[in-house]
Amino acid sequence: MRGAVLYGKGDARFEERPAPTISKPTDAIVRVAATCICGSDLWPYRGISPFPEPTPMGHEYCGIVEDVGRSVTSVKPGQFVIGSFFASDNTCPNCQYGYQSSCQHAEFVGTAQAPLVRIPLADGTLVATPQIPSDDLIPSLVTLSDVMGTGWFAADAAHVTPGSTVVVVGDGAVGQLGVLSAKLKGAERIIIMSGHESRQTLAREFGATDVVTERGREGIAHIEQLTAGVGADSVLECVGTPESMNQAIQSTRRGGYVGYVGVPHGVEFKGEDLFFALVHVHGGPAPVRRFLPQLIDLVLERKINPGRVFDMTLPLARVAEGYRAMDERRAIKVLLRP
Amino acid sequence: MRGAVLYGKGDARFEERPAPTISKPTDAIVRVAATCICGSDLWPYRGISPFPEPTPMGHEYCGIVEDVGRSVTSVKPGQFVIGSFFASDNTCPNCQYGYQSSCQHAEFVGTAQAPLVRIPLADGTLVATPQIPSDDLIPSLVTLSDVMGTGWFAADAAHVTPGSTVVVVGDGAVGQLGVLSAKLKGAERIIIMSGHESRQTLAREFGATDVVTERGREGIAHIEQLTAGVGADSVLECVGTPESMNQAIQSTRRGGYVGYVGVPHGVEFKGEDLFFALVHVHGGPAPVRRFLPQLIDLVLERKINPGRVFDMTLPLARVAEGYRAMDERRAIKVLLRP
Repeated sequence: MRGAVLYGKGDARFEERPAPTISKPTDAIVRVAATCICGSDLWPYRGISPFPEPTPMGHEYCGIVEDVGRSVTSVKPGQFVIGSFFASDNTCPNCQYGYQSSCQHAEFVGTAQAPLVRIPLADGTLVATPQIPSDDLIPSLVTLSDVMGTGWFAADAAHVTPGSTVVVVGDGAVGQLGVLSAKLKGAERIIIMSGHESRQTLAREFGATDVVTERGREGIAHIEQLTAGVGADSVLECVGTPESMNQAIQSTRRGGYVGYVGVPHGVEFKGEDLFFALVHVHGGPAPVRRFLPQLIDLVLERKINPGRVFDMTLPLARVAEGYRAMDERRAIKVLLRP
Repeated sequence: MRGAVLYGKGDARFEERPAPTISKPTDAIVRVAATCICGSDLWPYRGISPFPEPTPMGHEYCGIVEDVGRSVTSVKPGQFVIGSFFASDNTCPNCQYGYQSSCQHAEFVGTAQAPLVRIPLADGTLVATPQIPSDDLIPSLVTLSDVMGTGWFAADAAHVTPGSTVVVVGDGAVGQLGVLSAKLKGAERIIIMSGHESRQTLAREFGATDVVTERGREGIAHIEQLTAGVGADSVLECVGTPESMNQAIQSTRRGGYVGYVGVPHGVEFKGEDLFFALVHVHGGPAPVRRFLPQLIDLVLERKINPGRVFDMTLPLARVAEGYRAMDERRAIKVLLRP
């Protein structure tokens, strides 16, 4: 089969690689209905995160079960499934606490930009839909594998409650779905920080009520002004840079909550700053598996349309073009159909 | 009057200084029934935190209202009162959210190691007891001004719930009262980290069920072993050093809570470490005022005895001796009676 392989900085290729096989009795093989390119894929693509070359790519997926190992009991060939980017057994203590992304047996699913993908710990990782879903729901369903689950976790970690005032730092795909998640959780006011008109428009579609275009000191001052000098109840940090984290903490009211899901690059929290800010901080790799059943229902009932975040759809064969478009910020998020 | 004044490293004196007067209509003057020496007083005493010399000292107090400014309505001369180390109006948005230590008009009360102390924003800051309390309750009541309120906030920020497993990092007065607070909140297992036998004994009296004497890597390994490799639900960080904060984060389970109240000195949280630890972090200067009514009731009903934390009582005139005893760790906490 042919799939995406990253060879080096700016060099994503679509090339022949071995089709996956059941290597453990707990594995499943899924025929990918849709996959996509994640903002975090850009870290190695841009040469910022080191990786062994060449590396197969892709961790977002949904599709039809093709084969299962002999000990798999909860899914069977022919079923449509969605799973998290971290495979988890869903039974260890960390999973039981709802932190499946930190399962004691977690394995990263990193080869999903391909027609077939091997999913370890299939019983714990995959959630099947009652029927094969209508094709127009596929984009929304594949977002549940990471980006929507991550936006949801940001809102969850930031403790968004009905009536609250929320700031979303980051207008990428996760930030956009953070807006949608805050809206779903009943936020009254949702302020998106974005300097890009098309992204502001999308955020407004998802539920943003205000836009702050400034960054840095001006951005913080604008949030302060919008919140009568108090700060927001909840702030979703969806970028992962020192600047975005600082923006998040400085935008939060005393006793408010920062939920952060942008993989930190160079971020350091100064103990004293955090101490006197008196904010709550929680985040990490989203335990997407925890949210899958609820979010799948919302998509199947057509109550949410997170697939709206894709502003470019390409056949998988043109994956390299997708990486370029996201790298150059011409696309918010690229959907790939094998 | 004569009160405590810090002149430099290791140089606390008891000397004549002007008696406080009502300088704003919102002030009260309190005749101090008891004050004490705080672990945080040792930072300047040890020359670690800079301060203008000479500086009057003391931020923990309770006593009888001597005089009030003309706009004070909630307390009157003759009443027995306890207040927080931060004066607060108790009406601004930060106060309304329960973060009175970050009141928009907060003023630090820093001259309480004296027979008389001026308390700004008296209406918002002071809580009166129904009657003049029995003298044997005074030590416990004065702890509510900071140290007990701070231990309670640590347990609150660390989300201690009935049945939970708690680690307390720090065997000083705050850590000891963190143990008491965790016990009161229904923790099933309370692990105190302490290498000092007398402090271990006191912690057991307050409710500790286990003692970990190791520090650093061994300390973390011991907690891991005691919690079946999972970590504790709640960890109270009551020191404020990089080592203690690292111990706290590494001792917490995924999705668990770190409540930190030790004023950070040199602490930096690495973004990536915190991200993959998936813990909740909350802390800061304790909003003691929030907890005063509840804790006063518990003391007056003799349900808690936080005054047990004092292992040395001195007349105020011997304050210098008290600083030396705490600096040399011969005393956990020193009570001063004018």
